[in-house]
Amino acid sequence: MKTTTEAGREAGDAALGTRERIVRAASRLMQRQGYEGTGIKQISREAGATLGSVYHFFPGGKQELATEAIRHGDQEFTDILREALDGADDPAEAIAACARTVAEALRASDWIDGCPVTATSIGTAESAPDLQRAAAEAFARWRGLVEDELRASGFAEESARELAHTVISTLEGAELAAQLARDEAPLLIAGRHLARLIDSYR
Amino acid sequence: MKTTTEAGREAGDAALGTRERIVRAASRLMQRQGYEGTGIKQISREAGATLGSVYHFFPGGKQELATEAIRHGDQEFTDILREALDGADDPAEAIAACARTVAEALRASDWIDGCPVTATSIGTAESAPDLQRAAAEAFARWRGLVEDELRASGFAEESARELAHTVISTLEGAELAAQLARDEAPLLIAGRHLARLIDSYR
Repeated sequence: MKTTTEAGREAGDAALGTRERIVRAASRLMQRQGYEGTGIKQISREAGATLGSVYHFFPGGKQELATEAIRHGDQEFTDILREALDGADDPAEAIAACARTVAEALRASDWIDGCPVTATSIGTAESAPDLQRAAAEAFARWRGLVEDELRASGFAEESARELAHTVISTLEGAELAAQLARDEAPLLIAGRHLARLIDSYR
Repeated sequence: MKTTTEAGREAGDAALGTRERIVRAASRLMQRQGYEGTGIKQISREAGATLGSVYHFFPGGKQELATEAIRHGDQEFTDILREALDGADDPAEAIAACARTVAEALRASDWIDGCPVTATSIGTAESAPDLQRAAAEAFARWRGLVEDELRASGFAEESARELAHTVISTLEGAELAAQLARDEAPLLIAGRHLARLIDSYR
């Protein structure tokens, strides 16, 4: 027999489960089809949730949901980046490893699943400024992780800040190029070049 | 009095004028709103052309028009790149200058007009493979320009090919980052880093 607290927690967990399923469905669909190409009905179908429950969790509708989808994508790449940075002795090697991980994931998706943050936010500068802000925060957070790691490895403050900019810009652009070319080469080359650039500041 | 040939040519010029206006309107709108966010009616309004004339020139509808819009964006950046490469004595300096030009144009548009090729093609991998191919061709063409310039400046074949990959990937990613941050910094830093990377192969 369940106590009131247990029953309340189970109901809460179930609610959290639905919300999370909706965010993941939105993130995956917008990663493939962009913000404008994805409808809220399709998200609710893909999440196995009613339209009513989508609006219950996201009263702001598609734009609020897209902002959460971008945060979800932000967290996914934060995890990839952190794992790469923690898994290598050296930040240059870590960035090259991160480029390889992104390339593998892209190939595994048959070149369909690029960066969800970029795919969701691009083309919305005028129509959905919230998405721009969420995407800008994601880029800034990723740069922050790289900058901190470089500084911890002894790089000068300005070099670390500037290198972090180029690491994130280059990984992002190389992911786009690899997706279009249906080929890992742009990412693998970018990883080696970024390692070389980082090494040149030692 | 006009000869038949002159009249024919004038009619041809007028027709070309309308077609070109339609392509430019499509390119500009898709640059700002993406492929899915842009409707063919909006393109016809923006171009000052009837819907009938849009379908006359582009019987394949929006996807055919978007392919032409990508080719238009391809040509625009080809011109910027070629001007930068022709205008500097040195390819490293030329790439840094190109990054500055892109940054200035982005600021002048109040951070709205990013890369039209990326904005039009992203999120269409499943729905419009023609756009992916046109965008892939644009990236390959830009890389080819950089690669040729590096080889003409004495870089080894493989270095030139690989550097060209990273130059285009990095400029593309830095443009996205600059647009999101509403700040030239990612592009200016990328330009300096690319010049440094190129110099490291001499």
